[in-house]
Amino acid sequence: MIRTAAVVGTGLIGTSAGLALSRRGVRVHLLDIDEAAARVAAARGAGVFGPPAERVDLAVIAVPPTRVAQVVAQQQRLGLAHAYTDVASVKSPATLAVADAAVQDSSYVGGHPMAGSERSGPLAARADLFEGRTWVLTPGARTSSAALNRTLAAVSLCGAVPVVMEPSAHDRAVALVSHAPHLVATLMAARLGDASREALALAGQGVRDVIRVSGGDAALWTDIIRSNAPAVAEILGELMKDLEALTGALNALEVSAPAPEDALGAVRELLRRGRDGWEAVYEPGGAPGQVTLTVPLADRPGEVDRLIDAAQGAGVCPDGIDLCWSQGSSELSARLAAPPLTAESVRRTLADGGWRVSVAATPS
Amino acid sequence: MIRTAAVVGTGLIGTSAGLALSRRGVRVHLLDIDEAAARVAAARGAGVFGPPAERVDLAVIAVPPTRVAQVVAQQQRLGLAHAYTDVASVKSPATLAVADAAVQDSSYVGGHPMAGSERSGPLAARADLFEGRTWVLTPGARTSSAALNRTLAAVSLCGAVPVVMEPSAHDRAVALVSHAPHLVATLMAARLGDASREALALAGQGVRDVIRVSGGDAALWTDIIRSNAPAVAEILGELMKDLEALTGALNALEVSAPAPEDALGAVRELLRRGRDGWEAVYEPGGAPGQVTLTVPLADRPGEVDRLIDAAQGAGVCPDGIDLCWSQGSSELSARLAAPPLTAESVRRTLADGGWRVSVAATPS
Repeated sequence: MIRTAAVVGTGLIGTSAGLALSRRGVRVHLLDIDEAAARVAAARGAGVFGPPAERVDLAVIAVPPTRVAQVVAQQQRLGLAHAYTDVASVKSPATLAVADAAVQDSSYVGGHPMAGSERSGPLAARADLFEGRTWVLTPGARTSSAALNRTLAAVSLCGAVPVVMEPSAHDRAVALVSHAPHLVATLMAARLGDASREALALAGQGVRDVIRVSGGDAALWTDIIRSNAPAVAEILGELMKDLEALTGALNALEVSAPAPEDALGAVRELLRRGRDGWEAVYEPGGAPGQVTLTVPLADRPGEVDRLIDAAQGAGVCPDGIDLCWSQGSSELSARLAAPPLTAESVRRTLADGGWRVSVAATPS
Repeated sequence: MIRTAAVVGTGLIGTSAGLALSRRGVRVHLLDIDEAAARVAAARGAGVFGPPAERVDLAVIAVPPTRVAQVVAQQQRLGLAHAYTDVASVKSPATLAVADAAVQDSSYVGGHPMAGSERSGPLAARADLFEGRTWVLTPGARTSSAALNRTLAAVSLCGAVPVVMEPSAHDRAVALVSHAPHLVATLMAARLGDASREALALAGQGVRDVIRVSGGDAALWTDIIRSNAPAVAEILGELMKDLEALTGALNALEVSAPAPEDALGAVRELLRRGRDGWEAVYEPGGAPGQVTLTVPLADRPGEVDRLIDAAQGAGVCPDGIDLCWSQGSSELSARLAAPPLTAESVRRTLADGGWRVSVAATPS
């Protein structure tokens, strides 16, 4: 357990950690080269302003990636804490220059909470920012278990789920699921800066979601992208090949009235691959070995919506619900796909609701 | 006003229109080449299955873009309705082949509701799908005012806001705010299909938002992209130039340890332009001529959050709130930016809450 902590850098992440730890009874000290930021964080209840009188259990170094090593080394010299962790979104020691800056490896554990916001600074901080989120830790060979355990305690107090990874595996992963998506959103957003008022009036939730992250702090993101440039460049290089093929296909569709089949096929194929990626993120693991429940539906107003509500209430996801019309019997029936573990409770809920349910296992 | 309507094509949009119109007392007839889809829409309460005995007031043709002209012409020959509108996301008559298909111009009004979902089909339909959304209408020179007014009535009954536009202006606008973003999301999602389980575990809300729309119906989107290929190709061509410059900069950052200033500058500049586009979409009109309210804050626990809540409750947006620390007076104060029209009511709310508020107009 930890009783005292220091947060160095009271931006969005540092202040949110301070709020979460303070709420769980940890005495937190707040430091920032910008005194106003630390004062604001303190005023929001993230801890007390200024350095502690004696070593704290853990220091959370919440500064931009390219400054981490320098700040950790400096605070180790000053004797701020027994253990040190950071929150930078790149973790390779070489990138962070941890070795160059003579960081004492034994008391340092690299960290990266997978949480953020397009808003920045202590005013955007929230005590529940890390709730249920993954918090990656990258202990080195020389990290002491005492330092690791203090960091694990802080992560748990913040409500996050700790995951231990190799620094280089982490950096490749975030290039793919965070840094490249950020730049892709930015590339699209950059097209919208000069959009006419008339065009912007047609902007709906779709484009808003696509570009949302591009509202983030440009200086911080320049630093992040710079620190992970090789991994990000590789992904964007692959994406550029797809984009070249796509624009080639679009130009072919442009010139000829009856659509050339290969151009159409290229667009279709890209959309299909996009859908695969969507499923990997939104429905990881797919739906192997689902159980199918079939429910005949009476021809009564509201019957379909009543069944959909009951099925979803019992844990069936919207995409697992299908309605079938049998020409022969003139009957409408619902087919519900449920994971084996929940199928029986779904069946019971629906049977209790007065429906006639038949069950069949689907081969995976 | 309209009393009777037909929906041809009971997918997500058609069924949602049926649900909305039925709820407002319109008698809706549901038709689809897939009988099961129309039966399911009827079972959900979107109307009655099958064609009407006599001409309805308005037919909503909710089929994919490349089939619109053919279906409108066919239903006009059959005498389905007095007026016809469609919901396709491209509107140029040439693209829709309206002229070729011998559509009677006087009873036809092009339409496009700016609403959707990454789910498709009648089960995903919702009566409130169009609530508060823009619904573009593109009447031609020969469109009768009777047909236009029937369509306007239906749009209003669906709770949407009608906007009249030129077809070509509409098509350029949606290429920018809908079709290109869809493909950009798809290009990113396509990179994620082969991602390792370890990498996917780090995927947070950011990447989910960036790729969300790529979960949409691939066949429908192939049709949409094909119908608006020239406008989409132009935008993606511009985006590709930015992407080439970006990957060039990333590769330069990769090779040299001290970051070359021009490469760093290129990344920074793109992020800045992205932020401009983000603001155009999220904060249209910017914040000209804001009024600044300054509020000194007592050093009391919870005081800052209490003020933030009160200010937001009075209509100040989160980005319009700043906290300042004055070294001289050792005092924390809040600076709130409010539009001239609401500044006085914000001031009154805060004064009623016990705060001392001073007001100054900011030059725009």
